[in-house]
Amino acid sequence: MVRSTKLPSLVEGGVAAASADGVVRSTKVLMINTNPARGTRDFLPADVRKREYVIGIIKEVYESYGFEPLETPSFENLETLTGKYGEEGNQLIFRILKRGDALKEGAAIKDLSDLALRYDLTVPLARVVAHHKNDLPKYFKRYQIQPVWRADRPARGRYREFYQCDVDAIGSNSMLVEAELISAVSDILNKLGFDDFVIRINHREILETLLIVFGVALEDRAKVLIILDKLDKIGEFGVTQELAKDGIPLHAINGFFNVVNQLKSETDGATAIRRINAFFEDFEEKSIGTDKLRSLFALLGNLGTNRVKVDLSLARGLSYYTGTIMEINVPDLTGSLGGGGRYDGLIGMFGKEQIPACGFSLGLERILVVMEEREMFPSHIAASTSADVMVMVFEVSIEQSLTLAKELRQNDLRVLIYPNEADGIGKQFKYANQINVRYICIIGDDELAENKVTVKNMVTGEQETVPSEDVASIIQAGTDRK
Amino acid sequence: MVRSTKLPSLVEGGVAAASADGVVRSTKVLMINTNPARGTRDFLPADVRKREYVIGIIKEVYESYGFEPLETPSFENLETLTGKYGEEGNQLIFRILKRGDALKEGAAIKDLSDLALRYDLTVPLARVVAHHKNDLPKYFKRYQIQPVWRADRPARGRYREFYQCDVDAIGSNSMLVEAELISAVSDILNKLGFDDFVIRINHREILETLLIVFGVALEDRAKVLIILDKLDKIGEFGVTQELAKDGIPLHAINGFFNVVNQLKSETDGATAIRRINAFFEDFEEKSIGTDKLRSLFALLGNLGTNRVKVDLSLARGLSYYTGTIMEINVPDLTGSLGGGGRYDGLIGMFGKEQIPACGFSLGLERILVVMEEREMFPSHIAASTSADVMVMVFEVSIEQSLTLAKELRQNDLRVLIYPNEADGIGKQFKYANQINVRYICIIGDDELAENKVTVKNMVTGEQETVPSEDVASIIQAGTDRK
Repeated sequence: MVRSTKLPSLVEGGVAAASADGVVRSTKVLMINTNPARGTRDFLPADVRKREYVIGIIKEVYESYGFEPLETPSFENLETLTGKYGEEGNQLIFRILKRGDALKEGAAIKDLSDLALRYDLTVPLARVVAHHKNDLPKYFKRYQIQPVWRADRPARGRYREFYQCDVDAIGSNSMLVEAELISAVSDILNKLGFDDFVIRINHREILETLLIVFGVALEDRAKVLIILDKLDKIGEFGVTQELAKDGIPLHAINGFFNVVNQLKSETDGATAIRRINAFFEDFEEKSIGTDKLRSLFALLGNLGTNRVKVDLSLARGLSYYTGTIMEINVPDLTGSLGGGGRYDGLIGMFGKEQIPACGFSLGLERILVVMEEREMFPSHIAASTSADVMVMVFEVSIEQSLTLAKELRQNDLRVLIYPNEADGIGKQFKYANQINVRYICIIGDDELAENKVTVKNMVTGEQETVPSEDVASIIQAGTDRK
Repeated sequence: MVRSTKLPSLVEGGVAAASADGVVRSTKVLMINTNPARGTRDFLPADVRKREYVIGIIKEVYESYGFEPLETPSFENLETLTGKYGEEGNQLIFRILKRGDALKEGAAIKDLSDLALRYDLTVPLARVVAHHKNDLPKYFKRYQIQPVWRADRPARGRYREFYQCDVDAIGSNSMLVEAELISAVSDILNKLGFDDFVIRINHREILETLLIVFGVALEDRAKVLIILDKLDKIGEFGVTQELAKDGIPLHAINGFFNVVNQLKSETDGATAIRRINAFFEDFEEKSIGTDKLRSLFALLGNLGTNRVKVDLSLARGLSYYTGTIMEINVPDLTGSLGGGGRYDGLIGMFGKEQIPACGFSLGLERILVVMEEREMFPSHIAASTSADVMVMVFEVSIEQSLTLAKELRQNDLRVLIYPNEADGIGKQFKYANQINVRYICIIGDDELAENKVTVKNMVTGEQETVPSEDVASIIQAGTDRK
């Protein structure tokens, strides 16, 4: 995979600058820019195989929980997306230029665009649920694995086109939903080979009660959550500074972190909830949030999921969350592998009805980064090959070679016919080495005379000359495709 | 699947008009547009399953021929796409608005955009081959199945976002390439259940020689091909009229169609080639094209492909074709299921080197339209269900229900847990009927007391109460997932 984050394209770099200077752009004819657009990547075959391996496991697990696939268009009407992601998000939306007569020379910027590329998979889901209400069951459990686009500044691991793997359950406010989402996501990470992930959970209602206890004024609470969400990046000291600068009393901040840190080492969810309740009782407060999480931990026990930990400092940036919030972390990655939560108000923005909803989003690119660094791909995926066997071709035996290839394919083998009968055996061998194929088949003059085929294992160097009907079983025996 | 081709969005319809009239747009607040953007579609689960079934077969066959997967970004630098599709194509490219400081109020239209959505998969392939030359093998056989976008006027079966399934072989000018492409595409259509498709082939060099024979001037030949490409839509009479209007002598046109029609009923490729050669000999002409197609028919015989027919009227619109051209048709579809050809000059537009190439593109949307009309989907795809079994949940037995669900999943069943333990048995039954699930499991008071599970087949109405360890095998026995 070749990333173009560091190579500005001619348009954004050289030529555009030249044009601004009024210089004649004759260089454009000579220099052909073959880079992918800034912040995007070409996925060569070995990359695609790794991506499809991970996506395959994600799909399989979600299907096993009864989630159904949904796909939405790559672009939406502009007004579907605006106003959903906050001011910062709004700036990162890729807008599409109007076309034909609708595009007027000299029009104001705000009138230039009518469509925009998908920014996430949650807002399109909310639109779909409102739009197709009559075609969907009362409870709609869907997954969606598609790219999204954000005009962010490209950086290591941050792209302008990247995949999200979302799973959401619509229509129920039972904690069964959260339990199933967490269980499914755990199954996925286990199947991929992660053995050190932690799913941190919190509840917006518990955060609310905590802020009440520490005397944070109602109008300050949303702001506090946004700052708290930076904890991963700027640490406790940084968050304390920002909160203090925004007028939150220091004793409230210290009190909050004191409670958070006391609970950090508590790995048992039910005990953590009991301790939070005991703390609230001291202040004669109660929180629906603790009731909700208590029932969640009971359900998770039945589903056999044990990587879940309460973390009162988890805030999640998005304003639309209304209940449980969740995030997955592994030790060697700053940021999360995925996150989600309950958002009972979003669908109501597209329809007359408030419909409860809860979801989880896995970040495909981050999962791939960690798996790549840890070399977690199974050998048949890591050693990506285009074929199980390459059949050589020579003018004299081309008929027999094609017939052999056809027969091998009928035996479910992936068969590459060398694509040029004019090349000699040396070139054909060289190519077989280049593409790293394990077996080659040769029908030369001798084999033709005896009506046989020479099969060579390119890894061990072993070769044997056998009747063509024996070739498939030899290759199958030596081919690992699990 | 709900199409929005006939429902203009508020932006392009109502509100935009109101705005042009200067009317205050307060209606926008009240009316929430939940349509997908014009010319695009939401794919609900049953749609996605059908699409994935077809894509799965296409992938499997291409892989069996040693083609490897490639994915390219959804948008490209604008100059990568411009000048590749002719003037008409250029108009249909979706352009993306510049962002931040690069977007200047009052800028000329030509300076508003720096990126554009992918218009086809061939030009990105040519860019990738030129860019990653050192990472790719000498012969590169790739397939690519991704959406493309065209700002066409939406119509029945014509969308602004649609999938192409491309397969191309780069680096060889042997007719083995054409033979393999045709063989692979035939295998796909056979596996999907098509038994009446015809692959029409022609060769640009044969067309050239024919035009020479009929005295069409060199400067008129490209124009003649473009008009000839409309034959499917406007018929022989229409083409004759347009050609005559453009100054092509009537005796040339009639002569051309005379040859074309004489060959129409010739189903044997080798014989067709002999007859074309005999015709050319009468005029003391020769064509490399007939040599090429003769060798192609010999190779196809060895691969067992027999649905290929020479059609001298096949022209293909795209100007970049240089050799063999191909198109697949079925009787009940105007237009083609796919097409392709050899384009030995395109990659050279992105690099210093001319690299031969030949490819085939299948139109996923058209394949789906015909399969839908002919009801060609296997029953387990057509009767799309989210799960093999739904497990009911009641407060009293929720623990046992979750444990059962976990065990059934471990037996590779797709298990939906009813997502709300507060609902009664009546509601849960109603939902099971709504989602069309075949089996349900119930653990009520009686089952709980006996440590058993009631399994009900919703299709036959049969039910039995059994130990939980017997449930999986009962459901597996009654579940068709082939």
